Amino acid sequence: MFTNRRDVQIQWGDCDPANIVYYPRYFAMFDDSTSVLFEVAGCSKQDLVRVYGLVGIPIVDTRAKFYIPSTHGDWITIESRIEKFNRSSFEVIHKVTKGDDLAIEAFETRVLVGRDPGDPNKLKSVAVPANIIEKFMRG
Amino acid sequence: MFTNRRDVQIQWGDCDPANIVYYPRYFAMFDDSTSVLFEVAGCSKQDLVRVYGLVGIPIVDTRAKFYIPSTHGDWITIESRIEKFNRSSFEVIHKVTKGDDLAIEAFETRVLVGRDPGDPNKLKSVAVPANIIEKFMRG
Amino acid sequence: MFTNRRDVQIQWGDCDPANIVYYPRYFAMFDDSTSVLFEVAGCSKQDLVRVYGLVGIPIVDTRAKFYIPSTHGDWITIESRIEKFNRSSFEVIHKVTKGDDLAIEAFETRVLVGRDPGDPNKLKSVAVPANIIEKFMRG
Amino acid sequence: MFTNRRDVQIQWGDCDPANIVYYPRYFAMFDDSTSVLFEVAGCSKQDLVRVYGLVGIPIVDTRAKFYIPSTHGDWITIESRIEKFNRSSFEVIHKVTKGDDLAIEAFETRVLVGRDPGDPNKLKSVAVPANIIEKFMRG
Repeated sequence: MFTNRRDVQIQWGDCDPANIVYYPRYFAMFDDSTSVLFEVAGCSKQDLVRVYGLVGIPIVDTRAKFYIPSTHGDWITIESRIEKFNRSSFEVIHKVTKGDDLAIEAFETRVLVGRDPGDPNKLKSVAVPANIIEKFMRG
Repeated sequence: MFTNRRDVQIQWGDCDPANIVYYPRYFAMFDDSTSVLFEVAGCSKQDLVRVYGLVGIPIVDTRAKFYIPSTHGDWITIESRIEKFNRSSFEVIHKVTKGDDLAIEAFETRVLVGRDPGDPNKLKSVAVPANIIEKFMRG
Repeated sequence: MFTNRRDVQIQWGDCDPANIVYYPRYFAMFDDSTSVLFEVAGCSKQDLVRVYGLVGIPIVDTRAKFYIPSTHGDWITIESRIEKFNRSSFEVIHKVTKGDDLAIEAFETRVLVGRDPGDPNKLKSVAVPANIIEKFMRG
Repeated sequence: MFTNRRDVQIQWGDCDPANIVYYPRYFAMFDDSTSVLFEVAGCSKQDLVRVYGLVGIPIVDTRAKFYIPSTHGDWITIESRIEKFNRSSFEVIHKVTKGDDLAIEAFETRVLVGRDPGDPNKLKSVAVPANIIEKFMRG
């Protein structure tokens, strides 16, 4: 499946008193990376809501291993790809490099959810539309 | 080792357009929970810097599994404890409950770092002071 | 009108490489403070959505003056009160103290918005219900 | 003085349950915009620390007026320029447009600070180096 690569510059406000990235900020970068991956595949997060009637694609499981720290002004490259589609979920891998070095490895499992027809305050998983899977197969 | 438990109310700004917590915010809550755990043990993050000469206790590995979503106004309980001390790292477990239900399970591995005496721009791992371990044994 | 006062401890992740609070975090604290003010007045943000049918109370104008910096571990007190209700907006003042000293002064103007009946993708201002104003008059 | 213009795409995690940008996120964007302005002028935030020995350029006063909301997927343009240099502070203006429309106007006053030589835990204002002012005059 196709891979998206984007360069991100670490900002002052991403960093903590140790002068390195405050790690929850990396998860925000990964969330953005998954959104960009979908947008580049031809199915933006707005499409997920408006075209496919989803509420979102929340995370149900995520892990990240941090090998090299970064500070403000540094540029990192985030390479993201969907590893696997399941019935109503999918797995994403993010590989962060800094120059030639692997800085972070992360994976996430997300589930497609819509409103529960029986109770609109509840969320309900939704099968991944074949149409969406196809968009990621082209790469 | 002793456990700290704290109640956190989910705020409007913690939530995303799906009306549930934007997951990077949970990692910020876990980071705060580890800080509070240290403070309650008698060794605040300020102490780590001023008394023990550390730069910080950055994350090198973390994983979280999300079972139940929460929205603004909800109260969750975060129970945190150090699972294990290694030579210069330690493992923390956070268990989030919502009422009687398990909402999230997370673990994190953190390493104690100081400035590298040879190059103050570099970070260097530091052995966990016996003194700090003792503080967590009392519980 | 009644005033709410809450104590907030500055966290590691609220701070930047200068070891002081990264100022956008103060606005998050003020946003939380306004939510808490409403909740304590007997009209939580959930009520605004579920009972009054609002989409939110977005900011249209805000200013903050910062006199004293804070770092992680510090406790600040945020005192918030609604200064004035207008037809479909209201003004909030936040006064932050650190010990006996005034650390920050902030004001914000918020507008009550609902969905535009003609176009649910648009927001539309809504008159402040008399019922809500009364809740703030009791203090 | 010269102006920097940058395009920013609003992300899912920038938005709140009302499906519009959570306003503290705008201040993070403005903070990044000031950093980028300095970098483009030839004086990055890293230079401020390493070359000029500053601790940072914290905000002492900021105001923002919000005219048009934005949601995830939207692109905004942030145009930033230094309006005025004072002895040890300077004023920045950020103008946000969405297409042809003015979406937000913000200003900020920042002060240059270093460590107090008498007490390294205290911050002390520092006169703006002539050298830095020159960099902004070229535009």
